[in-house]
Amino acid sequence: MPTPPLSRRGAAMPPSPIRKLVPLADEAKARGVHVHHLNIGQPDVPTPPAFFEAVRAFPDRVLAYGHSAGLAAVREKMAAYYRRRGYEGIGPAEVTVTTAGSEAIQFALMATCDPGDEVLCFEPFYTNYNSYALEAGVTLRALTCRVEDGYHLPARDAIEAAVGPRTRAILCCSPNNPTGTVLARAEMEALAAVARAHDLFLLGDEAYREFVYGGAVHIGVLDLAGVADRAVLMDTLSKRYSLCGARVGCLVTRNADLGRAFLHLGMARLCPPSLEQYGALPLFDLGDDYFRSVQAEYQRRRDVVMEGLARIPGAYARTPEGAFYVMARLPVQDSGHFARWLLTDFRHEGETVMLAPGDGFYATPGRGHDEVRLAYVVGTAELRRAMDCLAAALKVYDGVG
Amino acid sequence: MPTPPLSRRGAAMPPSPIRKLVPLADEAKARGVHVHHLNIGQPDVPTPPAFFEAVRAFPDRVLAYGHSAGLAAVREKMAAYYRRRGYEGIGPAEVTVTTAGSEAIQFALMATCDPGDEVLCFEPFYTNYNSYALEAGVTLRALTCRVEDGYHLPARDAIEAAVGPRTRAILCCSPNNPTGTVLARAEMEALAAVARAHDLFLLGDEAYREFVYGGAVHIGVLDLAGVADRAVLMDTLSKRYSLCGARVGCLVTRNADLGRAFLHLGMARLCPPSLEQYGALPLFDLGDDYFRSVQAEYQRRRDVVMEGLARIPGAYARTPEGAFYVMARLPVQDSGHFARWLLTDFRHEGETVMLAPGDGFYATPGRGHDEVRLAYVVGTAELRRAMDCLAAALKVYDGVG
Repeated sequence: MPTPPLSRRGAAMPPSPIRKLVPLADEAKARGVHVHHLNIGQPDVPTPPAFFEAVRAFPDRVLAYGHSAGLAAVREKMAAYYRRRGYEGIGPAEVTVTTAGSEAIQFALMATCDPGDEVLCFEPFYTNYNSYALEAGVTLRALTCRVEDGYHLPARDAIEAAVGPRTRAILCCSPNNPTGTVLARAEMEALAAVARAHDLFLLGDEAYREFVYGGAVHIGVLDLAGVADRAVLMDTLSKRYSLCGARVGCLVTRNADLGRAFLHLGMARLCPPSLEQYGALPLFDLGDDYFRSVQAEYQRRRDVVMEGLARIPGAYARTPEGAFYVMARLPVQDSGHFARWLLTDFRHEGETVMLAPGDGFYATPGRGHDEVRLAYVVGTAELRRAMDCLAAALKVYDGVG
Repeated sequence: MPTPPLSRRGAAMPPSPIRKLVPLADEAKARGVHVHHLNIGQPDVPTPPAFFEAVRAFPDRVLAYGHSAGLAAVREKMAAYYRRRGYEGIGPAEVTVTTAGSEAIQFALMATCDPGDEVLCFEPFYTNYNSYALEAGVTLRALTCRVEDGYHLPARDAIEAAVGPRTRAILCCSPNNPTGTVLARAEMEALAAVARAHDLFLLGDEAYREFVYGGAVHIGVLDLAGVADRAVLMDTLSKRYSLCGARVGCLVTRNADLGRAFLHLGMARLCPPSLEQYGALPLFDLGDDYFRSVQAEYQRRRDVVMEGLARIPGAYARTPEGAFYVMARLPVQDSGHFARWLLTDFRHEGETVMLAPGDGFYATPGRGHDEVRLAYVVGTAELRRAMDCLAAALKVYDGVG
């Protein structure tokens, strides 16, 4: 009597390239090595105390189901935030609260694509897009962006040439994970033009929308003219308020049919976490001072990483305009091997670095093997030590693998 | 320039039949009518105070991502709970924490079925199975259970006859939502035998596993011999600890390949809510006294509902053995019309009742139109008033619709 086989998607569901080396990091720590975690986008910035204060003041005796589209007060606050950012006419009816950005992306893919359909995107991309696409039976058609171009988009004609008969949507991410690139207005408008010309939805992953440095300006999908019926903003509070564990995000669209589909998808899973939505309520009142101080800290960190990379022979990266990642080319042939070796065989003054290998951020086989993603989610002093560690490692790494 | 069309699944995603009448209930309340909510499985039992105490004592400054398979301490506590229930050898490695029972069902469907595959189930069933199946591209093949049989399962040969070449799993729910039926050991063993004979997974939705009354015994999929490689328990803390808004559930399986697929599906969405997992930790120490007092309360309520139904001419239900629902046949032709009419046109001493129409719990068109689901999630005094209300309504309802 055989064991039944998993589904193809169950068997093919990839482990997170950001998390799969965790067991090796745990072993390194057990050997007494200090591991600098630059592999995962978990900010060290404290969650604003107002969150915990609100949670402690939760007034109900029963932690009940909330509305499937999110607590009304949260939707009001979210809509007001987007109106402050210039998105006129966004009210609670245009906002669906999701179980963080992950579910926002899942809902957007399912509501716009059927199994067998295609979504156009740009690699390197947030690695979990692969998993969401596999879950939904959707194929990602990825156009490659290059480190030499600062991972900015290919020209419009190249994008247009990739649109096929099953293409249903364009998925973009700015500020970008993993590259930190902030798309210029002209790039965003080119995407909008392609979406209009080929009758596609335009899905914007804007998890890092408040993390933009040095005069760069974030342009979101709702900033664009002429795409009200096809633009979907996918957002989360995870990074904005250092609230990754709360699992609170949202979808915003002016397309009422899509909004209804999001509500019905939401009804299927009943509601996002109630208590953590309640805790998030006061955060919307923090104002722009909060963002400015966080931005200043991340900009200092980015500069430390770039200085560190500049001192490493053969390393290459263009200074990213946003998010808290740098995608860098390193003088290695297999960054997966290098990342494992850092954890298993290397230490520098009792320390090592954990990186995310680049290939996990590409759909095209063979790409990204000389790249890594660095998340600057620790303070500048630790970052300096981490970059020293990385430089020391590359001096002795023999490149095999 | 046309607006792009939604996907078929986005357009077809049904609203929750349990929630779709909420706007009418809101209007009734605005007119000053008191609405008895028997439509939704939201217990009024207070969440154990230990949950809120733990949340208030949360020690970290950053609400960070947790492990994708759930907090280690939660998995330990969950495994210990199942071992106390007699499931030998269940350790944390067999447990994947999910964002409540909803995600447990979604993960189980995706890891066992590809788009186009079939799952065998029994109607009436938990209405959101329809949505999860549509999301996953899976077809539900539903065998009908009848009120006259107390919604117990059809004979084994009828079940076996429904297995087709694309059938990948059997999905059962005991204690059942919406019927309250608790499957007997012989019924569960018949399902196990069919699963073995046809190489199928056996998926058990056991959200109500602690709610069993009057000597009935809950038999779960992990109680069965010979299905270690194909049994998947889908569970949640929502009902067990009146914790619906927390979104904490789990998957349990002894099939390590499935467990790995669940972990990878979990990695895609990063983690379940961290703070609410932390709050749930002390609940596992409550012990069986807690369950006994809650069970006694629900059994009293069930008896009030059954007494009320017995006084209504033409109403019919068999006394359910578990959960906190009764599925009843009423002397109406269209229970959807009746449920709307209760909210829009009826009041009895300033009160009315909100019910879940039966057809939403069936996959077969035309079934359930003379049935409703009653959730006994309010105290016995309110339940008596609600049942009086229902009796009064059926005296004057003209049956049109």
